[in-house]
Amino acid sequence: MKKLNVGIYGLGLIGGSLAKALSRSSPDLTIMGYDRNRKRLHMSLKDGTITEVLKGTKYEELDVLFLAIPVERSKEVGKKLIARLRTDAILTDCGSVKKPICDELSEFTKGPFFVGGHPIAGTEKSGYENCFGDLFKSRVVFLTPYTGTPASKIRMVKSLWKRTGARVLEVEAGYHDHVFAFVSHLPHIVAYSLVHAVATFDSELPLGYSAGGFKDFTRIASSDPTMWSEIMVENKREIVMALRHFKKNLSQLETLIRGEDVPGMNRYFNLSKKKRDSI
Amino acid sequence: MKKLNVGIYGLGLIGGSLAKALSRSSPDLTIMGYDRNRKRLHMSLKDGTITEVLKGTKYEELDVLFLAIPVERSKEVGKKLIARLRTDAILTDCGSVKKPICDELSEFTKGPFFVGGHPIAGTEKSGYENCFGDLFKSRVVFLTPYTGTPASKIRMVKSLWKRTGARVLEVEAGYHDHVFAFVSHLPHIVAYSLVHAVATFDSELPLGYSAGGFKDFTRIASSDPTMWSEIMVENKREIVMALRHFKKNLSQLETLIRGEDVPGMNRYFNLSKKKRDSI
Repeated sequence: MKKLNVGIYGLGLIGGSLAKALSRSSPDLTIMGYDRNRKRLHMSLKDGTITEVLKGTKYEELDVLFLAIPVERSKEVGKKLIARLRTDAILTDCGSVKKPICDELSEFTKGPFFVGGHPIAGTEKSGYENCFGDLFKSRVVFLTPYTGTPASKIRMVKSLWKRTGARVLEVEAGYHDHVFAFVSHLPHIVAYSLVHAVATFDSELPLGYSAGGFKDFTRIASSDPTMWSEIMVENKREIVMALRHFKKNLSQLETLIRGEDVPGMNRYFNLSKKKRDSI
Repeated sequence: MKKLNVGIYGLGLIGGSLAKALSRSSPDLTIMGYDRNRKRLHMSLKDGTITEVLKGTKYEELDVLFLAIPVERSKEVGKKLIARLRTDAILTDCGSVKKPICDELSEFTKGPFFVGGHPIAGTEKSGYENCFGDLFKSRVVFLTPYTGTPASKIRMVKSLWKRTGARVLEVEAGYHDHVFAFVSHLPHIVAYSLVHAVATFDSELPLGYSAGGFKDFTRIASSDPTMWSEIMVENKREIVMALRHFKKNLSQLETLIRGEDVPGMNRYFNLSKKKRDSI
């Protein structure tokens, strides 16, 4: 099998973990990495995570380039980088919102190729110093290829992700953003708001005492603020819609509570419990 | 030391676990139990969790009686049971809301004595079949005694809870309900609403895919619906207040999202993150 050259642009939690997972599982790959933070770049070279620094004419040697930078910069940087690739090479990304970047790069179905990607993995901690090769193990990676993208190019990206231990699923970009507004973005909004409510309350509340409670429930409010501000902007349309639907459901429950409607609350809670138990 | 007679009225998750913890740690106790479910009562006798069935004149032998039944029935049942105790005996409870029952039994500071209690422990699973002796280990139990209650009586309840491995703190009943509206009741409302929103959405959403996400975040929406309906009624005043404050904070964030106000979102998320990280 031909030796592949894989580039990883951005060596934070996602890019760093990807580089580690690939370098560990795949001695047949040459892994070139880049990060604008020189200290981080040096660290990844020194510990053997990347084989060499990705720069200059190295881009022309790449078969696949992974973009692993904040979603807000991905469109612009992606557009610049794909112009430096060979016409048989592939650019793929790791952003949490897919429609904006897929719309921006929709011309790249003939080579070089763009294949949208979103690994469903992460921790509350960001940065290369927190990355690890098992981050994607048993996780799902969504790919959002265009209908015109050659199957061989999709297969190539898929096979690289599989080497990290991930399962790969294909989905349409707009549908991806619609679903993630509900299953990820809305929960973050709610968790941030809940902690914000407590932080701005007019009396000091001791928070460590709830059993099934506050601490576990609000874990995701420790996530990276900058990353989440960007996601809010990128997926605003879907998020606003999901938020509207959530507020309607919250108001329904509030009405039941104010009216001390126990049968109504039982029905409401039972429906939620049934849904939750089915996940 | 005098052999103590301890009664436990209600052998569900809390009462059953308490009986198991006490019978295991304290051979000096006689543990009498009661549950209106005869099968459950029989089970607890057969497996040695309780020493004998609590009934008839046995109430007069009790030194301490724990009430471990749903919060909605606690006031009425508590009032009936305390009338059957000796004047030196103590009734204590395990309810999640404290002011209603403490207001109802406020005359009992002279003997028999009422001492409000709330063990901060539980799982999504209820019933004797899910109880276990370690449920209270390293957990906090709040006691909400009246100012007029003799210290020796409070100490007695405290010492029994300590035998389960719990840490005991005293707090005023109204303040307890105020704090728990925020740290426990509000998170449950939000989690139930979030799952309800997803369950009533007009398209099927695949929920198993969010990394930090939906499944973990909504775990508490699997809690017992009946119990939570009762808590909503019992602590309605504090809950409505907490909910109003939450909705205000949610609207603030929505305004920032709609306006794509990235610096504003960063400030909002940072304040939440800082607060959450400090727990």
